[in-house]
This record gives sequence, C-alpha cells and structure tokens, in this order.
Amino acid sequence: MPVFTEHSSSSRNLRVLPSLASPLPRLSPPFEPQNGVDEKYEVVVVGAGPAGLMLNLLLSRYGLSDTSLLCIDSKPSTLKSGQADGVQPRTLEVFKTLGISDEIENEACHMWQFAFWNPSENKHKIIERTAVVPEVLAPSRFSYEATIHQGRIERIMETDLLRYSERGVLRNTRLVDVRIDEESDAEFPVVVTMNTNGEEKVVRTKHLVGADGAHSIVRQCMGLRLEGESLDHIWGVIDLVADTDFPDIRRRCAIHSPAGSVMVIPRERISTGEYLTRLYVHVPETVVPDSDQVLDGNGDIKAEDARQRRSRITQEGILQQAADAMKPYYIRPKDGVVDWWAAYQIGQRVSTQFIVNDSKGVARVFIVGDACHTHSPKAGQGMNVSMMDSYNLAWKLMYHINGLAPEPSSTAGTPTPLLDSYQTERHKIAQELIDFDRTFSTMFSGKMGATEGLTQEEFQQAFKLGNGFTSGCGVEYPESTVVLRDDLEDSSSPVKGTDNLSGILRPGRRLLDVRLLRHADGAHRHIHDDIPSTGRFRILCLASTDLLDRQSVSGQALDSLDHLMAEFPASVLELIVLHPKLHRQFEWDDVPACIKQRAEMRFHDGSALDDAYSIYGVDPAGGALAVIRPDGYVGVVARLGDVARVEDYLKRCIRTISRE
Amino acid sequence: MPVFTEHSSSSRNLRVLPSLASPLPRLSPPFEPQNGVDEKYEVVVVGAGPAGLMLNLLLSRYGLSDTSLLCIDSKPSTLKSGQADGVQPRTLEVFKTLGISDEIENEACHMWQFAFWNPSENKHKIIERTAVVPEVLAPSRFSYEATIHQGRIERIMETDLLRYSERGVLRNTRLVDVRIDEESDAEFPVVVTMNTNGEEKVVRTKHLVGADGAHSIVRQCMGLRLEGESLDHIWGVIDLVADTDFPDIRRRCAIHSPAGSVMVIPRERISTGEYLTRLYVHVPETVVPDSDQVLDGNGDIKAEDARQRRSRITQEGILQQAADAMKPYYIRPKDGVVDWWAAYQIGQRVSTQFIVNDSKGVARVFIVGDACHTHSPKAGQGMNVSMMDSYNLAWKLMYHINGLAPEPSSTAGTPTPLLDSYQTERHKIAQELIDFDRTFSTMFSGKMGATEGLTQEEFQQAFKLGNGFTSGCGVEYPESTVVLRDDLEDSSSPVKGTDNLSGILRPGRRLLDVRLLRHADGAHRHIHDDIPSTGRFRILCLASTDLLDRQSVSGQALDSLDHLMAEFPASVLELIVLHPKLHRQFEWDDVPACIKQRAEMRFHDGSALDDAYSIYGVDPAGGALAVIRPDGYVGVVARLGDVARVEDYLKRCIRTISRE
Repeated sequence: MPVFTEHSSSSRNLRVLPSLASPLPRLSPPFEPQNGVDEKYEVVVVGAGPAGLMLNLLLSRYGLSDTSLLCIDSKPSTLKSGQADGVQPRTLEVFKTLGISDEIENEACHMWQFAFWNPSENKHKIIERTAVVPEVLAPSRFSYEATIHQGRIERIMETDLLRYSERGVLRNTRLVDVRIDEESDAEFPVVVTMNTNGEEKVVRTKHLVGADGAHSIVRQCMGLRLEGESLDHIWGVIDLVADTDFPDIRRRCAIHSPAGSVMVIPRERISTGEYLTRLYVHVPETVVPDSDQVLDGNGDIKAEDARQRRSRITQEGILQQAADAMKPYYIRPKDGVVDWWAAYQIGQRVSTQFIVNDSKGVARVFIVGDACHTHSPKAGQGMNVSMMDSYNLAWKLMYHINGLAPEPSSTAGTPTPLLDSYQTERHKIAQELIDFDRTFSTMFSGKMGATEGLTQEEFQQAFKLGNGFTSGCGVEYPESTVVLRDDLEDSSSPVKGTDNLSGILRPGRRLLDVRLLRHADGAHRHIHDDIPSTGRFRILCLASTDLLDRQSVSGQALDSLDHLMAEFPASVLELIVLHPKLHRQFEWDDVPACIKQRAEMRFHDGSALDDAYSIYGVDPAGGALAVIRPDGYVGVVARLGDVARVEDYLKRCIRTISRE
Repeated sequence: MPVFTEHSSSSRNLRVLPSLASPLPRLSPPFEPQNGVDEKYEVVVVGAGPAGLMLNLLLSRYGLSDTSLLCIDSKPSTLKSGQADGVQPRTLEVFKTLGISDEIENEACHMWQFAFWNPSENKHKIIERTAVVPEVLAPSRFSYEATIHQGRIERIMETDLLRYSERGVLRNTRLVDVRIDEESDAEFPVVVTMNTNGEEKVVRTKHLVGADGAHSIVRQCMGLRLEGESLDHIWGVIDLVADTDFPDIRRRCAIHSPAGSVMVIPRERISTGEYLTRLYVHVPETVVPDSDQVLDGNGDIKAEDARQRRSRITQEGILQQAADAMKPYYIRPKDGVVDWWAAYQIGQRVSTQFIVNDSKGVARVFIVGDACHTHSPKAGQGMNVSMMDSYNLAWKLMYHINGLAPEPSSTAGTPTPLLDSYQTERHKIAQELIDFDRTFSTMFSGKMGATEGLTQEEFQQAFKLGNGFTSGCGVEYPESTVVLRDDLEDSSSPVKGTDNLSGILRPGRRLLDVRLLRHADGAHRHIHDDIPSTGRFRILCLASTDLLDRQSVSGQALDSLDHLMAEFPASVLELIVLHPKLHRQFEWDDVPACIKQRAEMRFHDGSALDDAYSIYGVDPAGGALAVIRPDGYVGVVARLGDVARVEDYLKRCIRTISRE
C-alpha cells in the first residue's frame, strides 16, 4: 500500500522474534553469586541427554539464568547415532505445549499401526500377518507414535534452550565427584568437582540433578543402588535402509517365526530420500551380565568370560538371524551398509531412592532418567520416561527456588514436601515401567505358535493392556501433596465415570486434550493450547447450565475464584472457563465480569466441537472445578460450589501473598 | 538401555539436522563465474520484502548457490514495524509445503469469523451486530486467515533461507540503475549498478527480478508504467493494544456507523501477553495523490498543497474518528500508546508489463509484488499476492536456468514460453486483485444504512463472492504453455462437476488438499504433504476400480506412465497413486509393480478418510490422470487411458532426455 504517513514506537522491534515464555515470578531474594572462592549456582544439571536437556530447558524457560543454572555434559555435542528413537503421544503432547513438536510432526515417521506376524499353518508361507491394530489406543492429541533419531530430539531441545540461555550446555565437561557438605556452606551444600578438557574445578550449588545415564556417577557418588535382575536374553538392534520384499516394512511389526523373533520399527526419512528401518533381533546366545551393570548387583562375575561371550555378537550374526526369522521374505541392507548396530541384554532395575536430602531433610540431589531406571528399549519407553521425570521435577524445583512453594509448616514431617513428591510420583512410574518391560520382553523373547507357550492372542492382549502405559497417556500419580484425591464420596463427586484413560477427570491423571470453540473470536482451539508449559497452575472452571442466571452457582463460584486468585502471586494462576450448551445466545455483559477480566481468551464453548463435559465426566447441570498442575496433571477436582477445596489444594502447592 | 556393543557409520552425523530440500538436477553447464572485470550472477533479486525473500528462498532451495544468486536490499534488516499482517489460507498452504508454516500456525492470530456491524434502528444502540460469517468460505487445508506482523513473516523466510545460503540477503545495498546491454555480453545482458554503504559497484546477470515495492526502481529503469486511478478516500491504520468494551474486538469486523467506517483486524499476541488490534479508519479528508505515485501518472499536481493536506492526518484524528464510529462503545489505546500508525490513500494500479525481454525475445527482467500492483490493504491481499507472484515465477526461472525447460521449437513465437507464462498468469491475477479491491474499498468507504446507498446484504454478498479470490484458493490461471485445458469434450472428460472452488479438478486451479490413508503404513496423510515445494512435477494417478484386475486400464496406464517418466530427467517427476474403494483387501503383489517402485510412500486409499474421488469430481469406475505443477496447480487432466495427453503436456514443460 502506498503509505504517505507512518509512525512507529520502538517497542515493536521485539515483535519479529518468536514468542518467549514468560518467566515465573520470584519471591525469594535474587540470586547474586558472591565473588568468593567457589563458583556458586542454584542448580547444576549433570548430563545433557534427553532428560538433562529437558530439565535445563524447562528451568531456563521458567526463568533461571546462566548465572544460577549450569548444565554440564562429557560429550562434545548432541548424540550422533543410535540409541532411542521413539516419541510417545504423551511426550508429543508435552513437546507441543513447549512449542517444540513441529519438526517431529513434520519430519518424523508416524507409526499408526502395529502388525503381528506369526507362524503360519501353511508351510509355504512360514509366517503370516495375523492382525493389524492401531499403535495408539489411548485417546490423545496425537494418534501415533513418532520415531526419529534421538540426536534430533536433543538438537531440537538444545536449539530452543539457546533462545533462553547464552551458554547452553557446558560440554566436554565430566563429573568427577559430588558430595554434600553443609558445614562450610549450608546454603550451597552440594560440592561438585568437574573436569573440563583436563582442567579440574570445584563449584557449589543449592541443588544438583544427575541426568547422567545408566552408569550415573551421581548415583554412585550418592551411594544409591539399582535393584532388580538381569535376564539372559540378548538382543541385537540395527538401523538400516532395508532392501526387502517383506510387505509390512513400513509398519511396526512383532514377528514371531519358528526361526526366532524380530521387531520392526519404521523410522524417519533421511536426507537421501530413503526411509530407515530399525530391527530388534533376538540373539540365541547366553551371555553373563555386563560388568558395568554388576557394580550395583552381585560381584562374582568373571569379566573376562563375559567379554568373550559378548564378542561373539556381530553385525553379520544379527542380520542373519533377522533374515532367518523373516523368511520366506528377504531382507538385507541396501548397498550392504548398515547405519548403526548394537547389542544389549535385557535388565530391569530401578533405584530405590531418587532423592538425597541434607541433614535437615531438604532435598538436595536428584536423579532422573536412565540414572533411576534401566530396561529394554523395545517398548520405546526410555527416552520418554526420562524426559517425563524431568518434566515432573522441573516445576517443583523452580517453585522451591523462586520461593513460590508454601513455607514449611511446623507440623509437616519434611521441609520440602513439594520436592519430595518427585520421588513419590516418579518412583511409582519407574516401577511400573520395569514391571511392564519385564512382562513384555519375556513374552516377546519367548517363542510363539499354536503348539507351544504363549499364544498370539495373549501377546496382543498384553500390548493392548500396556498401551495406556506405553503411550504415556495412562500414567496416574498417587495421592500426595500435589494430588488431592480423598474424601469425595461418590454421590457428592462432580465427576461420574471410571474410564480415566478416555478423559474422565481424576486427580493424578493428565488432562486429556479436547477441542473448544472460543467465545471471543470463534476460533477452534485445543484446551492443551491453554496450558502451555510455562510453569503456571490453571483453575479449570466447567461452568454449569445456570451461567446466564443472576445469582447462579456458576457466578458465585467465579466470584469466589476471582477473590481466591488474588491471594496468590500475580500470574502464577490462570483461569480457564468452559460453558456447556446454553439456552440462548449471550454477550460478555451476560456472564460474570471476571471471565472477561481473567479469561477473555480462555473462555470456550465446551459443546460446539468436542463434547468436553461428557469426555471429562461432568454433568452440565452441575459443573465442576479442577486445578491443572504446571505439568498438565489434574491436582484436584471439586464441586462447582466448593471453592474451599480448590483453595485447600492450592495452598499446599503455592505460597499466598495475603500476609504481606 | 545398557548396550554392550555399538557401531555406527559416519553418515549418521548429518541426521541430527532438519531435512533439506533436494536441489533440482541441472542439465545446463555448471555456472562458473569467470575471473573477469565484472561480478556475474545468474539471478539478481532486488528487494527482500515478502516477494523478494520468497523468490530468493525458492531459488536457493531449488539449488542456486550464493555464487549464482544475489539478493540485495536497501534496508539494514527485516521490517520492524507496520505494513502487512494478513496471511491467507492459500499462502499458508504454500508455507506448509515449504515447512515454514509452524510459527504462524502456533503463534499468529487465527481469524475464523467476520462480523458485520451496522446502524441500528434502536437509537440507543446506534450500531448492532447484524451477522457473523466464517472468514474463510473456500475449502482449504486451513480454515482461517492468520494475522501476524510482516516482519515476522520476513524473518521466518530469512531464517530458512540461511539454511541454504551462507550469504543470505546483501543488506544496506540499494539499486542505482539497471539496463540491458547485449552487445558487451549477450549471456549476461543485464547490467546492475548498486550501492552498498556508499560504495558503488556494477555486476552483470542473466536475469534480474525487481521485488522492490510500490516505488520500484527496477520498474522505473525499465520504463514500465503502472496504470489505474487513485481514489480520493483516505484511510488511517493503527496497531494498538485496545482498551475497549466493544464485544467483537477479537473478531474481524466491518463496522458501518452513522459516524463513519472502521475495520477491526484482530492480531497476534505479543510478548506482554496482550493481543494487538489493527484498525482501519476512514478519514473524511480529501487529499491529492502522493507525488511518488504521480511519477507514473499525470504530472500536474501541486506537491506543496498535497503535503499540507496530508499533514492534517494525525494519530489523534484517526483515533477520534475510530472512537466516534464505534460509539456507544469506547475504545482507546491501553496506556495511551499506539504501536504504529500510518495513513494511505486508496489507489488501484497495475503494470501493463511484468517482463522485459532482450532483443531475441528472451525474458530477462521481471517485476513481482508491489512493483507490479498497488492497492488498498483492507482485503489483506498485498503480501499474499506478492509472495504468490514469486512462487509462480521461481520454478519457471529455475527450469530455464537449469536447462530443464524444453528447447525452444522453431515454430513457437518466443524462445522462452515457460518464462512468458509468468506474465500471462500473474497479470490476470493482478488485474483481478485491483478490480476486487476497487469494488470492495469503494463499498467499504461508502456509508451504509437502511436509508442510503449500499445495503448490508450487498456488502456481505460482495465479501462472499470475493472469498474465493481473497482466500487465494479460487485463483484460476488461463490457458497457456503450462495450463492445457482445451479439447476435452464434456462427454469424454474424466472429471464431472463445475464447483472448482470445492475441489473439482481443473487445469489452472490449485489441487485442493484431501486426507488420505497410506497403504504402506496406514498413516493418515494430506495429499499436500506429497507435493512439497521442491520444484518437482507430480503425476497424480487416480486409479479406477479395476486396479486389482490383470490387464486393467489402471495397470496399463501405470505401465505407460512408468515408461514415460523414464524419458525425463531423473527426480524431476514424481508419481502419486490413489485408489478408490476396492472389492477386496490386497497386498503389494496384487498391484502393478511400478507403484511400489515409484510411489511406495505415495500410494493411498482415496476413500478411507476423505472421499477424494468425489471431491476431485472423478468417477471411481473410470479414474483419471492429472499433472500437478511444481507450484501445486493442476496443469492438465486426462482420462486414465490417455497417457499421451500427459506426455504432450509434460513435453511442453520439461525437456526429455531420450535423445541423449
């Protein structure tokens, strides 16, 4: 347009950048590192794999600067090959709330289906497809599991991290030692010795998180022990561009043949335009456990013997085993080259403790990810559970550091209940993970057929039952400081139904995504877009059908919520309001004023697109209240009139400012 | 997982990066700039606004390196304030095929609705909402128009450009002069004089594209003239965070009040967490045309007088006019500050020529974007039409440069018909644009009411009729070298139906997106994901219901296509195959082998999700063939058996290699 007059204010200059998440407010004194002997931090993260990067990214987005947060990693860069490749629907949901899911949505392989191949009664066929089921059975914002190289996941997180942190990850830096020493400095009791390119340095920190993998040095220094057993099954894993006539090479497949077992995992397209395939192959070789693993287990293993046995596992042997199990079809690496291969032994172990306290009971050292739990890769869980460990811990740690957590009550048994809930919640999941993995791996390693052992129906059944867990969507945290579930009689509960996997609201479960029609502009929205991972709690008000009446229960509840929200630090609480189908059209003037003031762009018709009330198990005539934690899990559910219950819950999690 | 053996090949290291588009093959000799007197390029792009950046990005992705492609811009950086803000559905579709739509999908304002406000018969109300209609009526992959600051659009494209180009845009460099001089150097006949920070330099190039805006120096140097008229209406435009009780401030609104006209454009959320609003306000002041514009028009304007009149337009005046027109509601800038404001005068003009040829008739200089057409901003067209100019030109220019275009036939009237089609196609759109804008602006500037002038019904009707155009989805290119439409009798056409806006295949229209179920893996796909903007032609085969029969028409067509594709340079043609609902399940073995060979991951069930056959107007019993151009427009439609027609079309666009 031919403009002839133009004026702008300089504030616009920032607008060309992508949005940054707003940091959380800080009530504690600002962190000002003294010019003393030791470098000091508030948090040191050891390890920049998926778990460490996720934690570092979240803390940076919540507002910790490079001055108070340090992440070190012994590697010179993000991972270049192998390892994990599966991204579960729940992980995708979380990535979406961080605005970092796009590359996975656009470029990963999306697995929609899982095919089962079993011995055929027709001898010429040898094996045949017996079923194809959806890969993801649980309702989720994403109906597929994505597969993509772990190195890309790491790079995606690191790229986003660098928008918030100038330093990013301090690389080529390995942890030498960590110990707790309160005598010299009770505020910074964790003493960290690290080595960067041969140069040793000691720093102090308030908290340290060990995200340093299965052979965690943090875990060893803290004397934490992995418990569990190693099984004898050995598996080979190969990434390759496959030359094959196997019809289902682009689907996830569990192949049980008379000659052995193979799992096919289709993978992303690579720069050549070709598609990768990952194969997990059962290797019929007995090998004693890896000596690394034995450190935490029994010690009477002959390491030399183990090394010899393991050396028998070769690329050629794994490929041959796969080829035998997939007959009558052929499979070979295109151009004879594989991209990556490895062998591993199934072992399910979990650390008994995820937290180490100081002498006052304050949680000081944490472990996350593979440092807490090791297991087989075939269910595609490792990277996901590890990142979710960090996702669970990050906001709790941040609330503690920023002084947003309630002051410890004299009657409570622990000074840091919010931090302690990390162990309560994630140890349960770790235990479920290794239990599931043990069952699934044992089943998968066993032969299958009409005449022996496991039936294909049993295997399929195990997959289906496990899907709530493996998709990440069925995770349920137990009762704790941050999950308030007791004392609701069935008759007084505002939520009816038990199918929590399908969305029925339940404290401890993540809020299922639903599609909503926004009042302000008629935009089609996802409720997950109203709960971005910015560290805020959200009060979800499902107003009842009386919303348009004067002196309605809905109106009174909203008024009370308005007052309640003012008791907490500004911006830590956000309000989301849904309304059911109402008997007439309405304008802003017809609903309580606090909706427009507090939730103008988060006020939605919950019946126009999805039937949110029905999905959440809420009767439109009664409505309901819920609090959604910063990690997207429901913290409490209350009747619409019972704002006191919401207040009770929030005061367990967030400090009030009313006394100031 | 506790791996005990691990090996990787170094080729994996590239895999952590996002995918790069594959460059187009080059049949012409490689470009090797001589170490001579002048710098030489194959293409120089002048201007890095939306049109220039889009062209530069496409040519870089298609394979032009910094050695052969130079883009200059007089500004020191991307735009920081004001100007365009609307991204239409068709533009979003194109961004999606480039993998650069994510930020707009995630962070722009999505306009789903258009509200009409008109004088009320109730005097206390003054104005009332008379209708709310969907903002986008045309079927599209995107059901909304996005609004976001033009500077962000530019930065999104520039960021992606830097993945392909080390230099990016050469900034602080203004064009001084451009002329065609074949005598000194017929291969590089375009002589460009530019000035970087005061230093003048002359370079030569094969082709030059002027994307240098409404006051284009390229246009002036080439002696091209804008034709059209300037109207007297003056409009002010303001970006602000609004403090208002107007109920529809988050919707696009056309407000006609007794006190004047305002258009409300909701905008994106900014870093403060607040939402912007743009207001277009009719200013009742008569001002003569801008002297800049007059350069190309009549010359007898008193510049001094014009300047005085324009100086009467102030921020306060525009705001007051808006406030008056929106009564009884109040509106004011939050905290008293506006972000940006400007005033402009509606003028609809279009250049008669978009191309300048050399003496042999070879197209050498092109203009795109505002250099070709100026008009009012209210229909949100400028940035969109400008980028689509470049999207139309880029592949044609690249085919010409890379030697992929057919060699000129001795009978044709022009040596570069592919390049010439840029003018044929885009001049038609520019003319439609200014015709639409003249109608729409005039209507909008006029008063409205029960007693005078235009009725609200007429205005709404104009919006609806124009929506195919304004959404970008209804664009239809005329018959040309690259659109083959003649000679299909209705009875022999494989496509029935006339509602091309709703997807009925028609040469010259863009292929509508449909959702498909992929055979290889059961993934849910969009057909637009099979036509990424990588510069390739696609043959779309809608197989018929006989696909599983031996000696079927479908099978014969696919065999013929297989042979035909081998006649063209490798990778320039891609095959997409859909099948209708078939009478039984099938495996790869049951369909022609070339499907798996050429289209393993582009072979879809066209009935499982959307009914693609019905949407495209194709009878499943008959099937059809179509060629989709690199820009997503249908080039030709043929009966399934008529591969000769496809061949005829392709040979007009792409050089064959059979003679080599």
